[in-house]
Amino acid sequence: MTSPIKLAIVGVGKIVYDQHVPAIAANAGNFTLVATASRNNTIDNIPSFPTIEAMLEARPDIEAVSLCMPPQYRYAAAYKALAAGKHVFLEKPPGATLSEVADLEAFAAKQGVSLFASWHSRYAPGVQPAKAHLAANKPTAMHVIWKEDVRQWHPNQDWIWQAGGLGVFDPGINALSIVTEILPSAVFLTKAALEFPENRDAPIAADLHFQDAAGIKVHAEFDWRQTGPQSWDIIVTTADGEVRLANGGARLWINGAEQALEKEAEYPSLYQRFADIIRAGKSDVDVAPLRHVADAFMLGQRKVVEAFHD
Amino acid sequence: MTSPIKLAIVGVGKIVYDQHVPAIAANAGNFTLVATASRNNTIDNIPSFPTIEAMLEARPDIEAVSLCMPPQYRYAAAYKALAAGKHVFLEKPPGATLSEVADLEAFAAKQGVSLFASWHSRYAPGVQPAKAHLAANKPTAMHVIWKEDVRQWHPNQDWIWQAGGLGVFDPGINALSIVTEILPSAVFLTKAALEFPENRDAPIAADLHFQDAAGIKVHAEFDWRQTGPQSWDIIVTTADGEVRLANGGARLWINGAEQALEKEAEYPSLYQRFADIIRAGKSDVDVAPLRHVADAFMLGQRKVVEAFHD
Repeated sequence: MTSPIKLAIVGVGKIVYDQHVPAIAANAGNFTLVATASRNNTIDNIPSFPTIEAMLEARPDIEAVSLCMPPQYRYAAAYKALAAGKHVFLEKPPGATLSEVADLEAFAAKQGVSLFASWHSRYAPGVQPAKAHLAANKPTAMHVIWKEDVRQWHPNQDWIWQAGGLGVFDPGINALSIVTEILPSAVFLTKAALEFPENRDAPIAADLHFQDAAGIKVHAEFDWRQTGPQSWDIIVTTADGEVRLANGGARLWINGAEQALEKEAEYPSLYQRFADIIRAGKSDVDVAPLRHVADAFMLGQRKVVEAFHD
Repeated sequence: MTSPIKLAIVGVGKIVYDQHVPAIAANAGNFTLVATASRNNTIDNIPSFPTIEAMLEARPDIEAVSLCMPPQYRYAAAYKALAAGKHVFLEKPPGATLSEVADLEAFAAKQGVSLFASWHSRYAPGVQPAKAHLAANKPTAMHVIWKEDVRQWHPNQDWIWQAGGLGVFDPGINALSIVTEILPSAVFLTKAALEFPENRDAPIAADLHFQDAAGIKVHAEFDWRQTGPQSWDIIVTTADGEVRLANGGARLWINGAEQALEKEAEYPSLYQRFADIIRAGKSDVDVAPLRHVADAFMLGQRKVVEAFHD
């Protein structure tokens, strides 16, 4: 039995309180939370520092850090942590650009530490059973419907509407992380339309068409203007039936029959994975979901739609 | 002495007549042009076919193909050529999306053939001397000025203004291919502004700010509205002077002294490189320039500017 890895969190906010803190507590054999660095927020009974620099200076015993600030600020913190020889857990998306993530991956390898680009939705309980089914039953088409009310899920989060904040791709990238996990082949974007509110620098909706070399068609619809019931659904057509993931991967139907699944444990599973790669001395940096987002911005047609006000 | 590789060209247009045909003639020991496939154009005395499928069917002796159609159509042709066991030369940019290029790279490896993502500007005569100088004299800042008259260089090329056609990044990616070749460290985008004419789906100008972990600052200005003298310049500040590349890398000054360079031979050098990787049994697919472009579309602030008419 190895001793728990001494972990720090940088960028304390809603996702940290809701997910990271309980997940770390559930991984007590793997991690002990020993410090936080954040401008405004703290965690009860955990030593806190105003900056990552102050924290790394005061607590050389820290072995790993989880970076949970907005993606535009993640590279600088990750670089400092890797330079100090710490293992790094990146919240999704792993960065504001693909190039910085490539640079961090190379730097982690040089430093001999582990870098983890986390995609929590891949650990939703229906995802691995869906993947196993599609490995044996070739998919021919996929329809992804990710429609939610931004006012409910991201109230007054200005950074998400800024250039680089990704807009509706912030939840949409969760869908893409599942799509790229469960499909047996690589797809790529062939056509896209992105809707930008006239007063914002990030899209509020996106319509995406992908295909692979063998002809599978994937259609994804992301929309942040959904009131009433929310949709986080992926419907896959196979030669002999249908696979349906709902609630972001928390429920699964195969040919109409709902499947019994494990209990939801996305973030505990992420921390288990982080511990596993640290102990195996490797990194896990799959940029495919972020690459699809960048492709959508590059290839997509831009449409200006009515202003959005929180 | 091995015999010349039997080569075909797909997508015959201006760049093929101006560059590929003479470069292949200059590489007679490496390549023999045996066929073309193109909807509208042919090359004198070379058998031509209306489609790549017809060409591959009729001429199984073809060993390698150069793909010169617009990037939006390149994947499908590349996939067919790789599936038929041919080595593939991709004109720049190597695809319309990063994801499709990643897929082609994996497929080429599986097929045991060579894939070459070509960046002709990297073979401009000043590039390798500049790179060697910067490896020994650390750069602190770089200014990239790529300003040309689109009406002169891309008259009535509708595809370049469509979503996915890249707009001013079509020449700008040449600058980025040089920047990523000569810099001793990896940079990433921190801020960008893209100007879209109100009647077009691709940008006419871009202002880009990059940095690396050590603090080097790169500022790139791309503009397609330049009349009068054209600018394809890169000015690098080092601790002990200045490196200046002009004319797209064809001329080089180090600390004010113009350097004697080899004769311009970008495309002959590309075909020499293609022959080398085929004979070495490897691929050469550096996506860094296209990744920076995708990052710019993802991170960049969009501004609408006056309509552009050819």
